[in-house]
Amino acid sequence: MAEHKRPTIQVISAHSGDFVWRAGGALALYAERGCDARITCLSYGERGESQGLWKQAGMTLETAKSKRRAEAEAAAEALGAHITFLDLGDYPLRVDDAGLDRIVAEIRDAQPEILLTHVASDPYNRDHNAAHEATLLARQVSQAAGHDRSTPPIGAPQVIQFEPHQPEQCGFVPNLLLDITPVFDRKRKAMECMSAQSHLVEYYTDLGLRRGVQAVRNGGGESITQAEAYQRVFPVVGKVLL
Amino acid sequence: MAEHKRPTIQVISAHSGDFVWRAGGALALYAERGCDARITCLSYGERGESQGLWKQAGMTLETAKSKRRAEAEAAAEALGAHITFLDLGDYPLRVDDAGLDRIVAEIRDAQPEILLTHVASDPYNRDHNAAHEATLLARQVSQAAGHDRSTPPIGAPQVIQFEPHQPEQCGFVPNLLLDITPVFDRKRKAMECMSAQSHLVEYYTDLGLRRGVQAVRNGGGESITQAEAYQRVFPVVGKVLL
Amino acid sequence: MAEHKRPTIQVISAHSGDFVWRAGGALALYAERGCDARITCLSYGERGESQGLWKQAGMTLETAKSKRRAEAEAAAEALGAHITFLDLGDYPLRVDDAGLDRIVAEIRDAQPEILLTHVASDPYNRDHNAAHEATLLARQVSQAAGHDRSTPPIGAPQVIQFEPHQPEQCGFVPNLLLDITPVFDRKRKAMECMSAQSHLVEYYTDLGLRRGVQAVRNGGGESITQAEAYQRVFPVVGKVLL
Amino acid sequence: MAEHKRPTIQVISAHSGDFVWRAGGALALYAERGCDARITCLSYGERGESQGLWKQAGMTLETAKSKRRAEAEAAAEALGAHITFLDLGDYPLRVDDAGLDRIVAEIRDAQPEILLTHVASDPYNRDHNAAHEATLLARQVSQAAGHDRSTPPIGAPQVIQFEPHQPEQCGFVPNLLLDITPVFDRKRKAMECMSAQSHLVEYYTDLGLRRGVQAVRNGGGESITQAEAYQRVFPVVGKVLL
Amino acid sequence: MAEHKRPTIQVISAHSGDFVWRAGGALALYAERGCDARITCLSYGERGESQGLWKQAGMTLETAKSKRRAEAEAAAEALGAHITFLDLGDYPLRVDDAGLDRIVAEIRDAQPEILLTHVASDPYNRDHNAAHEATLLARQVSQAAGHDRSTPPIGAPQVIQFEPHQPEQCGFVPNLLLDITPVFDRKRKAMECMSAQSHLVEYYTDLGLRRGVQAVRNGGGESITQAEAYQRVFPVVGKVLL
Amino acid sequence: MAEHKRPTIQVISAHSGDFVWRAGGALALYAERGCDARITCLSYGERGESQGLWKQAGMTLETAKSKRRAEAEAAAEALGAHITFLDLGDYPLRVDDAGLDRIVAEIRDAQPEILLTHVASDPYNRDHNAAHEATLLARQVSQAAGHDRSTPPIGAPQVIQFEPHQPEQCGFVPNLLLDITPVFDRKRKAMECMSAQSHLVEYYTDLGLRRGVQAVRNGGGESITQAEAYQRVFPVVGKVLL
Repeated sequence: MAEHKRPTIQVISAHSGDFVWRAGGALALYAERGCDARITCLSYGERGESQGLWKQAGMTLETAKSKRRAEAEAAAEALGAHITFLDLGDYPLRVDDAGLDRIVAEIRDAQPEILLTHVASDPYNRDHNAAHEATLLARQVSQAAGHDRSTPPIGAPQVIQFEPHQPEQCGFVPNLLLDITPVFDRKRKAMECMSAQSHLVEYYTDLGLRRGVQAVRNGGGESITQAEAYQRVFPVVGKVLL
Repeated sequence: MAEHKRPTIQVISAHSGDFVWRAGGALALYAERGCDARITCLSYGERGESQGLWKQAGMTLETAKSKRRAEAEAAAEALGAHITFLDLGDYPLRVDDAGLDRIVAEIRDAQPEILLTHVASDPYNRDHNAAHEATLLARQVSQAAGHDRSTPPIGAPQVIQFEPHQPEQCGFVPNLLLDITPVFDRKRKAMECMSAQSHLVEYYTDLGLRRGVQAVRNGGGESITQAEAYQRVFPVVGKVLL
Repeated sequence: MAEHKRPTIQVISAHSGDFVWRAGGALALYAERGCDARITCLSYGERGESQGLWKQAGMTLETAKSKRRAEAEAAAEALGAHITFLDLGDYPLRVDDAGLDRIVAEIRDAQPEILLTHVASDPYNRDHNAAHEATLLARQVSQAAGHDRSTPPIGAPQVIQFEPHQPEQCGFVPNLLLDITPVFDRKRKAMECMSAQSHLVEYYTDLGLRRGVQAVRNGGGESITQAEAYQRVFPVVGKVLL
Repeated sequence: MAEHKRPTIQVISAHSGDFVWRAGGALALYAERGCDARITCLSYGERGESQGLWKQAGMTLETAKSKRRAEAEAAAEALGAHITFLDLGDYPLRVDDAGLDRIVAEIRDAQPEILLTHVASDPYNRDHNAAHEATLLARQVSQAAGHDRSTPPIGAPQVIQFEPHQPEQCGFVPNLLLDITPVFDRKRKAMECMSAQSHLVEYYTDLGLRRGVQAVRNGGGESITQAEAYQRVFPVVGKVLL
Repeated sequence: MAEHKRPTIQVISAHSGDFVWRAGGALALYAERGCDARITCLSYGERGESQGLWKQAGMTLETAKSKRRAEAEAAAEALGAHITFLDLGDYPLRVDDAGLDRIVAEIRDAQPEILLTHVASDPYNRDHNAAHEATLLARQVSQAAGHDRSTPPIGAPQVIQFEPHQPEQCGFVPNLLLDITPVFDRKRKAMECMSAQSHLVEYYTDLGLRRGVQAVRNGGGESITQAEAYQRVFPVVGKVLL
Repeated sequence: MAEHKRPTIQVISAHSGDFVWRAGGALALYAERGCDARITCLSYGERGESQGLWKQAGMTLETAKSKRRAEAEAAAEALGAHITFLDLGDYPLRVDDAGLDRIVAEIRDAQPEILLTHVASDPYNRDHNAAHEATLLARQVSQAAGHDRSTPPIGAPQVIQFEPHQPEQCGFVPNLLLDITPVFDRKRKAMECMSAQSHLVEYYTDLGLRRGVQAVRNGGGESITQAEAYQRVFPVVGKVLL
């Protein structure tokens, strides 16, 4: 990672909850190591990922957004991460040129070594696809010397897909099992901030245990109890084979 | 890697030349770091990979084997690696139960953290497939508590495929570009030992340059000039995302 | 299927003829069983799927649309299905936010258990891709509690792809062969309504026979003579394995 | 299913434990409905799947087999299924012509409508591949009029792959989520018979819950709490789309 | 193609009927052009592809083989091709080292520019897989300078897969549609020689029509009425793009 | 190819340099044979593919475009090809309805037998995807009888993908190796026109050599020293198998 600044990890999240369940461990891990951990939420998930809220009488889009924002901010804080909201709308999430420019600005400001985002093709949720595509496209534009001469281009950050809800249906094949055992208490706290989706806390705790068992089976140390699964988009460049 | 012994990297090579062109850099790199670098040649490539030799008058299988062996030993020495020959025959390479047991014995003796071998499906050369299959099968048998109680089972070493001659036709998609710049002189020396295939020296030097350019493009440092491409079979387990 | 209302099957068709050739049997079968069979045509196929019409002197877009509409209505009637036209244009078919909202309204009105549509990627006809994507996206938006509070969200209908003209080039792998033998006379009548494409009647009759032979080969009863091939997008949930 | 005899479901299992964790629910479900539920174990998993046993002093292959057999018989009984052992050996499992003939004899005797077996390619365990291949090959030979004229050929039973331990690494994409809620107590009892692998009981109970949640998400009724995931090899032939 | 001898096309056929239905047009086309068209039948299909014969009283393996042989010879003659039978057995077809050596001898004798064979993976019929694998392996061994010094090695013939019965289930994606219109009468005559499978004559006539329609749709001339679909294994090397 | 006019090959290039490195040989080859070789540049690559230019003081978009245009015109002239610029913008390249109509007009004017363009999915550069999609969509619209009645529809030209920078990461599997040995001097001259990217000249010369070696290995004549790799999208229709 670059030496002249704190290493940076940046999550591009379609909705304001995704980063907690899918990449909360990675964010906490890097934050704890002194890295700059950032989250860019493209939408609040106000229309489609707030089913609980809409059961309340008198709910409005603005209230839904505001409640989702408060939860996400609390979760980000629990993880030690910084969060930004672009409010591009959900169900559907559409990233036009103006939206893209804002994502590019976020990425150029972060100068990340690592971008985390959704899978390329989720049949259940096309907003995830839109976030994936926007991440690759914004990464490319961020590299262009001729784009917005007032901010500096970036290098070639790795892009890593986090685990979708139904991995096999999305073509997700993990090539990295990240040991998040040391920071799982922080992830748990962050998950507990998402009051509208509290039934998911046990679900994702169990998933982490399962990925932890697989990590041990794939040669990780016996001490691993919680892991997150990831799929890197680009080849890793390195000096070691493992 | 395990701490009680020198870390070990082991190549399972279908023919006696494959390890030089495809994994010579990795072997040299690990040898230079004090690791145990081992090569297990399943055959000498005596029938199908010694086209030059067979143009010589009076060539016999035994002479072909012996010349191939001498070259491979010289190349292994140049890389700092230890080499063994199982002489299972080539074109076709067939691994029966006895052959499998010998590969298992080699693996249990090595107790490797990393196994390097061929791709799963090469339409040009089914011996490569046979070596791939034998590696996965021998790894599994090596783990079995009930197999050969006189030697200890292994853990769960990563298996990594090295680059075939025509990568796209073999479904090879690199997920690791290994920087071999610091040891390229050793790889070059090893390649030059393969007198029967001397035309390949420039070819694989050029390929290394091309993979080096890609390594830089994928975020590696500008100092990389030579790289080898690899595809890991199992997910990596780790504490970092890069 | 839901018990409080007639089960519903809904086809999302890029052009006004697609539903006849590709899903006519399914529509007739469900209609005959008393289900609500609906067709939503995103365009008339007026520019690109009416080659015969454009050979007539003085043809205009409006006349082409009107003729295509009349044929499609006759075909739908022959199948016992209800048909709607959204007139979003063809070659290219583009579904913007307003178009998407109209498709969502159609789906919420239908509350279907099954959505039938095109494959994800047809290299010959990108309108088919657009219809596939619109179907998945509209399904997702239709589920969102926060979208259009005046109409009720839907559940999780299965999405099933019908057979494209050149299946292998489109990545189409049938996982369902539907026996349409009992209603083939209706499908034939519907096909005969498509006067502009009358050469296709024999072609699709033959295709049905071929799929019927395959149905028998895959364990269906000997009485099957006509079948349609389908590929489900989502896993089936059930109490039986067959 | 055929009407002249009890419908039959047959599992072809590489090792004597696989059927419990991966298809125990399906077996119990079909047994409870009065079907003939059969298990054909190709090996006992005596060498490679009995790690606990080999920690006991004086363990021998024969003792390991005998203990594994007793456990598997108890588990089969708990599920209401009949079990046979072919004792072809494990790690590696190799099916030669004689072994194949015995599998064919089992299949012809069972005349199954459904065959359940392993995935085609499991990088961790090639015995699973061998069982998959043997199932497809034995099915084909069982259909041949000219094979063993003393037993009757079979029809065209569906072949269904059950879930491997690390599904994404095996290319497993479920296209069927089977509701096993009504028989989960039987599956749990069967799992508890596998004393050598007792740590897996909770693991597979949790996996069943996760597949149950997915079943509900894919349109199954809210009452589903336990499911098993399956991938059918052949197209389903039917009269319905769901 | 080589200039010093007649260009040669060689079919490696698992059973004695496959070449007629799947590659009869290609054989007739090349024969008519003065090429050497050869068929190597690995088995007679005596056990599994002679269902009609086994309904006759007193049928034996030898009689089945002899009838199948007679039919295949008549069909080959109708196509203008030369045929050889290796009698390696079917259901299952197993190619051991001796069998492989015989296939190699056939290939070295033919010195073909083109090898036609089955797909790599047919879930319905593993003999097809065995023939595919044997073809690739025998091609490789035929190239080896050190194999059987009494016969000359071959060059690098293209390998082309012909169409299986259920193409989508076998991963078959045609990249070549061969116009067989001028020789279809010969193919029809050859098909009519296969009296035990006479129901297939209409089926494959219809399939040829369908592939012919696709050929026209893919830019072929309007005069094409019959085509065969093929998938090349290796890249074509040429001086033109079409 | 059509006989009433000169055969035409048309490249649809995302940026103004792509056609040189990736299809320069094909263009020169066809031009030399008297064909009409055309290039349609969707953008100049002014923002993202002119990194060198943007290091110059006072660079502006207009200057960058103008310099890129001059280079591309010189390269096209060296190849004997005609070039057009649509100036749709880069990083990101977006093709709206107006842009699509202009591409359609170019294609209808050219009436090409062959369209060359980028791969479908390049994770490094989404402009390449946009160009691929625009090519397929414009081809389809160009075929529509009802589109722009003042220009004639086209037939069914083949679409061929040229080689991306990192082929394995883009799913590129060559099925054609084009011998460009006779025109390599022209390609080299064209490459040397691209002064802003002069470091690429050696890189692509080396790549051509590597593809040339592969062409020989795949059965091409020994005289091939330079080749370009291509992947056809549609099946070839022909009278020969090679």
